[in-house]
This record gives sequence, structure tokens and C-alpha cells, in this order.
Amino acid sequence: MTLTERSVSDLLAAFRSSEPTPGGGSAAALAGAVGASLLAMVANLPKPQATADEDLAALQAAGARCTDLALQLERLVNKDTEAYDLVVGAYRMPKGTDEEKNARTAGIQAALKAATEAPLEVMRLCRAALALAARVGSLGNQNAASDVKVAAAMLRAGLDGARENVDINLGSVKDASYVEKVRSESGALAAAVNTAATS
Amino acid sequence: MTLTERSVSDLLAAFRSSEPTPGGGSAAALAGAVGASLLAMVANLPKPQATADEDLAALQAAGARCTDLALQLERLVNKDTEAYDLVVGAYRMPKGTDEEKNARTAGIQAALKAATEAPLEVMRLCRAALALAARVGSLGNQNAASDVKVAAAMLRAGLDGARENVDINLGSVKDASYVEKVRSESGALAAAVNTAATS
Repeated sequence: MTLTERSVSDLLAAFRSSEPTPGGGSAAALAGAVGASLLAMVANLPKPQATADEDLAALQAAGARCTDLALQLERLVNKDTEAYDLVVGAYRMPKGTDEEKNARTAGIQAALKAATEAPLEVMRLCRAALALAARVGSLGNQNAASDVKVAAAMLRAGLDGARENVDINLGSVKDASYVEKVRSESGALAAAVNTAATS
Repeated sequence: MTLTERSVSDLLAAFRSSEPTPGGGSAAALAGAVGASLLAMVANLPKPQATADEDLAALQAAGARCTDLALQLERLVNKDTEAYDLVVGAYRMPKGTDEEKNARTAGIQAALKAATEAPLEVMRLCRAALALAARVGSLGNQNAASDVKVAAAMLRAGLDGARENVDINLGSVKDASYVEKVRSESGALAAAVNTAATS
């Protein structure tokens, strides 16, 4: 059973347990999924006031996009934990001979890169949803204004939390050009969100 | 079936649906529950390094407290939605006669206060968990440092999101002394967290 097939209560108990997964990476993806879902809800709410056709079309498009982003983030709740489990597995590979040591190192490095991609994708998806929050807030039902603000807080926490996981994994990656490329993208994603928040 | 008995996938779909609940209030409580659960996990992780007895006792006490806070926040995921459903129900009360109007107004006001208490309690619990994050971070297993940062981001999003819900409900409460009392407490809770974040 995947994490998202489990009950909410079970998932929270799994976060509390002292098993290495699920951890912060899946938590960040979940926060993003909740945030994107709330935006989709607001975009889909009936509106008491009349709305220009083009505004309604823009709102519906934003809602459809948020639903898609939410479903991708939901999958990443599971994927982040699966990717990290592979890292843990790679560290447990035998290291008796030089050949085993080399295979283990290569396995760890490949698993770490895959485990970096999951939270990096969470950052991208949270950024994409955050970029739609202002439109959903201005065109959507004004009675749901607080839901838009909660959604934005969740998406920022998802993005920030995912960045912590990108950074921790990168810290053990030896491929310097990969590290540089990912750090550059994650820095740009975080900066884009901070700029949007203060503008 | 309560929200937290449902699967994570189902809860996310419920957030996306255009039903009025669940909304931002339950989402904020969930973020808080995830954050407190991650802190409990870090406090419970075995540590490779030796730890002084008094530090271990402090860590275990913080972990037990985080578990308790997480369970309370989990219950508030359900309670916030139940409280808001009562507000929606009160607005649907008949308003044909003066007597009905008075009963409806009283019902709405009572329901709004109860719906304010739920996110206010979420703020208090997130604040309490955030106050333990530094201790868990410094005494806990250093390999889980990123989990502590994710937990803090979730708890801040939970507190900020809950505050939005306190504010939106208070906006319709007519009891000025109640509004003043709650605004004062929620402002103090938010300020305490912001001070801690910059210190």
C-alpha cells in the first residue's frame, strides 16, 4: 500500500515513527498537494457575482492546472519515500572487496541523484501552483479568500521543505557539475517565490 | 467516517471538491499535525553519538510532548470541518418570522465562535510545537536536521493558515469583547513565532 492509500491517521503515525521514512521529503510534497488542492477548490467554487466570460475561462484553466499539479504532488508523496528507501538500501550494500566498494559507491551516488530529483520536482510544482494563486484569489469566490492564503502558506512550506531535502541530498553527491546545476535551479525557484511574496 | 480516517488521496480529493468543507482550517491543522509528528520522529530516532543522560531525558520529554501535540492537531483536522459545517447549517436556518430571525442570528453567532476556537487552538498547538523545535534540533540525531527544518516550516504554515481562519470567522462575530480577546491572543501567538524565527 502506498503512503497516500493509507489513512491520514496512519500516515501521521508513520511520520512519528523512528523509521527513516516517511520523512520531511514526503511531508513537503503533501503540503504542496494540499495547497494546490485548495487552489483548485477555490477556482471551482460557484460565484455569487457575475463574471466576465474571459475571466471565467481563465479561472477554470487555473483550476484545471491546479488539479493537475495537485495530482503530481500527491504522487511525489510516495515517490520521495521510495527514492529515499533506495538510498538507505544502497548504503547497506556489501563493501568487503574493492569491487563491492566501487559498486556500492556508484549505487549510492545514483540513488542520491534520484532522491534529489523528487524534492526538486516538488519545488517546481509548488512554484507553478504559487504562480496561479494570485489569479485564483482575484478571480475566484471572494468568500474563499482565506483558503487562498492558506494554500499559499502550504505551497511555500512545501517549496521550502523540499529545498531542505534537495540540499541534504546534494551534500553527499560527488558529481560537482550536477550539484552546481541543481543548486542553481533550486536557488532560482526559491528566489522566484520570495520575489512574488514581497511584490 | 472522519476526515483523518479517510485515505490521504481521498482527503486531497475532498480539499479539491467545491464543497465548502474541508477547507483551509482543516488544512492548517493537518500541516501542524505533520510538523509535530516529524519533530516526534526526530526526537525518537536512535543517535549514533553518545548523549548525556539529562539531554536524553530532555529529548524524550520533547518527543512525548510533540506526539501529544500531533494527536491533538490531528483531532482538530476533523473538528475544524465539523465546526464550519455547523456555521453553514446555522446560515440555512429559517428566517421567515422575527422569532426565527433572532434564533438564526443567535445560532450563527454561537457557531461562528465555536468555528473560531478550532483554528485558535491550532495556533496554540503549533506555537507549542515550534517552541520545542530548537531543542529537538540541537539534541536530536543530526542526520535528521532537514526534517526539523521541514517540521518548522509546516508548523509555521499551520499557524499562519489557522490565523487566516480565526480572522475570517471573527469578521462576522458581533461580540466586540470576544473579538478583541481573540485578536489579542492570535496576534501574540503570531508575534511569538516571528520573534523566535528571527532570533
